[in-house]
Amino acid sequence: MDGQKNTTGEWKSQLIRGETRRQAIRELEKHPEAELAEILQSIDIELLVDVLPLFSAEKQGLVFAAFDMTNRLHLFRRVSKKWFASLFEQMPSDSRADIFQHFSTQERVNLLPYLSKSTREDVLRLSTYPHDTAGGIMSTNFAIIKEKQTCEQAIQEIRKEVPREKMLYHLYVVDEDMHLIGYMSLKDLVIAEPNELVTAIMQTEFATASLDEDRESVAKKIEKYDTIALPVVNENNQLMGIVHHDDAIEVIRAEQTEDMEKFMGIIPGDEVLNYNQTTVLGHFRKRVIWLAILTVVGFVSGMIIQRYEDALSALMILALYIPMIADTGGNSGSQAATVVIRAMALGQVNINNWMAILFKEMRISALLAAVLALIAFFLILILSWESDTTLNHSLGFIAFGISAALAFQIITSTIIGAGLPLLVNRFGGDPAVAASPAITTIVDISGLLIYFGVATLLFF
Amino acid sequence: MDGQKNTTGEWKSQLIRGETRRQAIRELEKHPEAELAEILQSIDIELLVDVLPLFSAEKQGLVFAAFDMTNRLHLFRRVSKKWFASLFEQMPSDSRADIFQHFSTQERVNLLPYLSKSTREDVLRLSTYPHDTAGGIMSTNFAIIKEKQTCEQAIQEIRKEVPREKMLYHLYVVDEDMHLIGYMSLKDLVIAEPNELVTAIMQTEFATASLDEDRESVAKKIEKYDTIALPVVNENNQLMGIVHHDDAIEVIRAEQTEDMEKFMGIIPGDEVLNYNQTTVLGHFRKRVIWLAILTVVGFVSGMIIQRYEDALSALMILALYIPMIADTGGNSGSQAATVVIRAMALGQVNINNWMAILFKEMRISALLAAVLALIAFFLILILSWESDTTLNHSLGFIAFGISAALAFQIITSTIIGAGLPLLVNRFGGDPAVAASPAITTIVDISGLLIYFGVATLLFF
Repeated sequence: MDGQKNTTGEWKSQLIRGETRRQAIRELEKHPEAELAEILQSIDIELLVDVLPLFSAEKQGLVFAAFDMTNRLHLFRRVSKKWFASLFEQMPSDSRADIFQHFSTQERVNLLPYLSKSTREDVLRLSTYPHDTAGGIMSTNFAIIKEKQTCEQAIQEIRKEVPREKMLYHLYVVDEDMHLIGYMSLKDLVIAEPNELVTAIMQTEFATASLDEDRESVAKKIEKYDTIALPVVNENNQLMGIVHHDDAIEVIRAEQTEDMEKFMGIIPGDEVLNYNQTTVLGHFRKRVIWLAILTVVGFVSGMIIQRYEDALSALMILALYIPMIADTGGNSGSQAATVVIRAMALGQVNINNWMAILFKEMRISALLAAVLALIAFFLILILSWESDTTLNHSLGFIAFGISAALAFQIITSTIIGAGLPLLVNRFGGDPAVAASPAITTIVDISGLLIYFGVATLLFF
Repeated sequence: MDGQKNTTGEWKSQLIRGETRRQAIRELEKHPEAELAEILQSIDIELLVDVLPLFSAEKQGLVFAAFDMTNRLHLFRRVSKKWFASLFEQMPSDSRADIFQHFSTQERVNLLPYLSKSTREDVLRLSTYPHDTAGGIMSTNFAIIKEKQTCEQAIQEIRKEVPREKMLYHLYVVDEDMHLIGYMSLKDLVIAEPNELVTAIMQTEFATASLDEDRESVAKKIEKYDTIALPVVNENNQLMGIVHHDDAIEVIRAEQTEDMEKFMGIIPGDEVLNYNQTTVLGHFRKRVIWLAILTVVGFVSGMIIQRYEDALSALMILALYIPMIADTGGNSGSQAATVVIRAMALGQVNINNWMAILFKEMRISALLAAVLALIAFFLILILSWESDTTLNHSLGFIAFGISAALAFQIITSTIIGAGLPLLVNRFGGDPAVAASPAITTIVDISGLLIYFGVATLLFF
């Protein structure tokens, strides 16, 4: 870590010049894949095609797997299938299945003949699982131990079988039919007595995922059990693959981004939305649908106001505070929805708590309503001092009426905001689709009804 | 994994009855800590005090570390310091420092005498680092190898030194002054030639964190390098601790929750907001500040409408569409802000791209404006067919004016929504504090100005 480090630009020029290339490769071979991928993604594709095969086979696969999907596809489409196949063979099995799912049918058919039988079978099997399930994100690179072995024998086998570059932290103990019967960490094996049976030191109580389990639930298990990898089994409890902790991190990021986008009325795509790689038209498509629906629904407010046109022209002061009432309602509703959606996502509350949640939100909103109505009351007195208050009502009485409407609006919209995610969840939906813009628009409508309802009651 | 499993209730009753307790403990000892913590957190504290010491020492520490913070503190406050100290000694060093930071000064002083010298020093040192830095989340449980050793010697040492329950995946190679010079995975060590020097097989290019590095940056490094643990070094490159991958997951969850709460105008606390454990008053305090500020700012809209009171009473139709214009502006602004904040959090764009971002948002908003204005134009024609349009303007012309104002409003608010997070970031703030309610309120004001501006220009 000491000594001077080369910048990406310096590495680039060393790779271009033939005489320094060999030395540069030898240095770069030692770098972490993430850094190497950064450097190699910044060089021209012609140079990349020359340089990449100079790295060790395992390194090539790992570095390429660390490329952005766009760059991976770009390289694939520029080189011969034969050249690509040797790289493809070396990729970790989960990234291999991932890029394979991005190929067109024709591209798949073109690539398959160049692959070894085992790779071909592996990639075809993995790419049949939906990408949002345990099967879709698992890797088939795992180390197994037969149940009859001693610790010594198991270590010998690992020495022989596991290539240098491959990561290996957990070992899975299986019987002759690949039924998963236990697991151990490599350390448990190393510190055990050499002639002890592996079955004597293995852990038999552990979490597993099933092939079709939702990827979010898989990530939550990895998080809950603080584990490095979660074994994935089929319905016969046979070991099919493992999901690594770094895939869990990726899933958590993707799901949370998706949740936030859904909540703000943006339709999430298959991949995490990459701001730069999404075109203007792509962004437009993701955003326009909710906006259009809500603009149309927004006209309902117009129709409500139209119904109260007479009241409005008789008491012009009412028009002034429509946006304030609407905004405060929208804000308190969205806040309540955010808090409830997060609490549900983190598993702190669930649908069975709905009565407790709504009761709690009711008490919170009563406090909020009291404080904000008081603020509004005095502000109206100050700001509308010179307004002409027709209909023989004192300004104080009018301010009281508007503040009371505001208080009702805050309580109603908080309950709507907290209740909508619960309702969506109750009918099997994702709470995050109870979008904040939808809440804003709904509480605008309820707010106007409350506002004019209170006004009619008090002033006319 | 086969055979019938006990439910939490069944475990509970087995633990209560003296004659089945020993058997239950033996079974539970094999369970993952997360499950065990769930069971033990559900039993009465008197029973817990009896039962917990029956587990192996390491298990006790790990299970207690998996308790919720509230339950950990609750137990601490109910038992004797001496009883607690033996549990405390067994906890992983990072959770130990974490709970220690939650103690009052008096509680710390009371506990310290019961601790061993090494634990006391460790916890005092760790708890001096701020909780949002690498030092604050790192663990001091790591395995080091001296640089002069052979692989065989290193393995012998691990066999001797590392207790059964401790996790161990990476080994750090240090010189006699604890300078970090390399690392290797346990697997690299196991498959190496026994008489090779550890320095020959270690990796020398790897990422590290500094003690005062922000925890979010630490989590991002763990994510980028797909590593299981990131070494933390001081300014002399001496190894001080490691941050585990599961801490990275926790940080990512916490930061994203915090971002979403900030964005919805909720003041986040030190801990991830736990919905149930936060009181009504606690929720109220977190939510009231922004709401109150924005209600006050919302009165600016009232003042703007007041200025245009004459126009409004002359052309009542204008009042009808105020909420629709305001909502659509708020929604498109919040959408733009969400997309930009996520892209910045995921490292896809940064402040240097601001021109490109704003230009892209301008093009997206132009498309949105065109579609929505068209929808609005026809809806106004349909809904206001019977309205009386004074001032001798045709309904078509009025509908055109309102739709044009809507189009301007969408473009302006999209740019404000995308620009505000960039601006906050430019001045060193967290983009997520460019709260969505603030954007809604700001674009309400700009929207009203545009609306009445266009109306005055066209109709009066």
